[in-house]
Amino acid sequence: MTDRSDILVQKYGGSSVATPEKIRAVADRICQCRHDHPRMVVVVSAMGKTTDQLVSLAREVTSRPRGREMDLLLASGEQVAVSLLGLALQERGVPAISLTAAHCGIRTDDAFNRARIQSIDTRRIHQELDAGKVVIIAGFQGITEGHEITTLGRGGGDITGAAVAAALNASVCEICTDVDGVFSADPSTVPGAKLLPEVSFEEAIEMASSGAKVLHPRAAEICMKYNIPIHVRSSFHMRPGTWIHGGETLMEEAAVVGVSADRKIAKITLLDVPDRPGIAATVFQHLANADINIRLIIQSAAAQNRARITFILDEDLVDSAADLFQRWKDEGIAGQVVVEPHVAKISIIGSRLASKPGLAARMFAALAREGINIDCISSSEMKVACVIGAEHLDRAVKAVHEEFFGRRGELANGDYLIGSAAE
Amino acid sequence: MTDRSDILVQKYGGSSVATPEKIRAVADRICQCRHDHPRMVVVVSAMGKTTDQLVSLAREVTSRPRGREMDLLLASGEQVAVSLLGLALQERGVPAISLTAAHCGIRTDDAFNRARIQSIDTRRIHQELDAGKVVIIAGFQGITEGHEITTLGRGGGDITGAAVAAALNASVCEICTDVDGVFSADPSTVPGAKLLPEVSFEEAIEMASSGAKVLHPRAAEICMKYNIPIHVRSSFHMRPGTWIHGGETLMEEAAVVGVSADRKIAKITLLDVPDRPGIAATVFQHLANADINIRLIIQSAAAQNRARITFILDEDLVDSAADLFQRWKDEGIAGQVVVEPHVAKISIIGSRLASKPGLAARMFAALAREGINIDCISSSEMKVACVIGAEHLDRAVKAVHEEFFGRRGELANGDYLIGSAAE
Repeated sequence: MTDRSDILVQKYGGSSVATPEKIRAVADRICQCRHDHPRMVVVVSAMGKTTDQLVSLAREVTSRPRGREMDLLLASGEQVAVSLLGLALQERGVPAISLTAAHCGIRTDDAFNRARIQSIDTRRIHQELDAGKVVIIAGFQGITEGHEITTLGRGGGDITGAAVAAALNASVCEICTDVDGVFSADPSTVPGAKLLPEVSFEEAIEMASSGAKVLHPRAAEICMKYNIPIHVRSSFHMRPGTWIHGGETLMEEAAVVGVSADRKIAKITLLDVPDRPGIAATVFQHLANADINIRLIIQSAAAQNRARITFILDEDLVDSAADLFQRWKDEGIAGQVVVEPHVAKISIIGSRLASKPGLAARMFAALAREGINIDCISSSEMKVACVIGAEHLDRAVKAVHEEFFGRRGELANGDYLIGSAAE
Repeated sequence: MTDRSDILVQKYGGSSVATPEKIRAVADRICQCRHDHPRMVVVVSAMGKTTDQLVSLAREVTSRPRGREMDLLLASGEQVAVSLLGLALQERGVPAISLTAAHCGIRTDDAFNRARIQSIDTRRIHQELDAGKVVIIAGFQGITEGHEITTLGRGGGDITGAAVAAALNASVCEICTDVDGVFSADPSTVPGAKLLPEVSFEEAIEMASSGAKVLHPRAAEICMKYNIPIHVRSSFHMRPGTWIHGGETLMEEAAVVGVSADRKIAKITLLDVPDRPGIAATVFQHLANADINIRLIIQSAAAQNRARITFILDEDLVDSAADLFQRWKDEGIAGQVVVEPHVAKISIIGSRLASKPGLAARMFAALAREGINIDCISSSEMKVACVIGAEHLDRAVKAVHEEFFGRRGELANGDYLIGSAAE
């Protein structure tokens, strides 16, 4: 809150710099912002679908698009974007300098393809700001102690933006994107979804982890830790979007603040699992060793000494897990492994949800009225999630959103809103 | 000659790695070469037309595609190529590591867009070779003392290949390209042109400087200085191409060794120039200050205290020189500046040509028989060049090649052959 620097950090996503024309528009926008904020640091993602295209190229030469060389490949995308934005600003007479992670010391561990930022050496950034330049930084990438180039994984541009904002103690971290901010639900599914003027860090993290794609949850975590406010807003106009900040101004009542939808996920159920200590640990250590991330774990109480373990993961990770399914059967960890490749998850998010079970009940009732069967339920302090058939998801989101926010997005339960949108 | 290391350096041009399929083929080729050469260093250019595409992108955001940010942009192309080749080799079970100029300390001066290599820190390269890896190095790029990324200008991949070969005291520097080697003339113009088994460094340098595009002349200069033999050969098969090496095995007689053609050039003539000291120096200092490279300068003897200065430059540099033309007139340096935007140059190359004026006479006669007017003549120790109308060039090359090499490329004058080909 106090003692923040006068530095404005802006992060532009790939869709905001997808073409030379859009890069010119972003340069114009930065010129405009610079009148009020003479000290600006801009973090940029690769242009449009560049990262996907580089992954496709890699897949044409290798069956294992991973490791050190993969990061060297992917990091080139952001290098192109920062160079072009630098040239576009210089063309407008604005002093600007484009920096890679190596240039500005974004130090990470050496976990290629999913590195984590350890520190940022801000000396070069301050030096260039003091020289009156707009500092443009390549998102998504880092550098190890041994000078190897790393990348931070999907959504890494947001993480760079937040980490740079934290390291500079920025006045705000603006996430400039192709939607107007955070909505009470995905507007493409729920036409009545409303733009939320503000949400708490915790709510943003839960929303982002539950399928809302407007912001990477790690970015919100970093800004929460260093108490840097985030402003999620459009790259294409100057109207305010959604502020994400500490909870002091937010209401104290338990509340549903948004509905989020998680698509393209698969459900794996281990049946007939021996009910003894260490089995679950073994299963999830196997998955971790194979580098397979899990979205949700549900284990209900055992009956007759046999347990049932269910977990949810990205649909496109199922193939890489297939060897493990066989192994678990061979080793007697599971009598049977059931794979349901096309399921979906709907979540309601809100502070202190757990303290008010009536809110979960209203969600379940709304789904029941639509005739939608709930396959699994998982709940936490801030979230209630239901796994349902993928074909019901859009209908489910509309029904649950209407239950809590009314037909046109008005505050049906007097609650404060948050929601999802797609980058 | 003696004391060379057992390291084989191969350089692959952009056309050799233009697609994922071609990158896989290069990986296969490296696997094959590795049987005989366990210690291999491979220098790679950007894929196909990548550099041109990056320049086009830059032109869409700036009218000045130059400077530090431009090099950061262009260097991404080689980063992609080395990463993909590294992944392709790893896919084949070959240990390989892809290095940027920063990784392997290719130190340059800080003349962005046309930097010159000052030194290469070979420690990392040796370390990776000792670990049994194929070392893949990004061509065309360097790094300054202040860790800024630079590029070496057009054809810079060849320069990197030669400099790396020199730094490692390689057994040979192979230039792997999309033609079979160096020819006595461009085979696309002269169907009877012959592949030359060997030429001297000096001849290769003159040929390359006179429009033959098979090799950058700086690359030949570097290898000549460190006495590293160059082998120009096809990327697509294993047959030998053209060896370029020191002159000890080459013949002592004056000889025409090849005919080369220079297209897309313009001729500028300053008329009515005051015949006093310093004028030519002023003119060419102005051009140097504007970063405009000149291919040829011809100044004939003055008459009536007025001189005439002619120079040849790339067609696409004429626009950037236009301001100077006006300035020279305004400042009384030239009474008139005549611009001929579409001319061509034909050269014969050979050791000690100057000592045998009869060879130049045969060239002029061959052109005269074709009715081709010679606009200007310039000659040096190893070259006689004639400026002619662009529309006559192909006919001129055929006629002059036939004069010296006969109708089918046989050695009409018993001379040893060299020539041009296109990368």
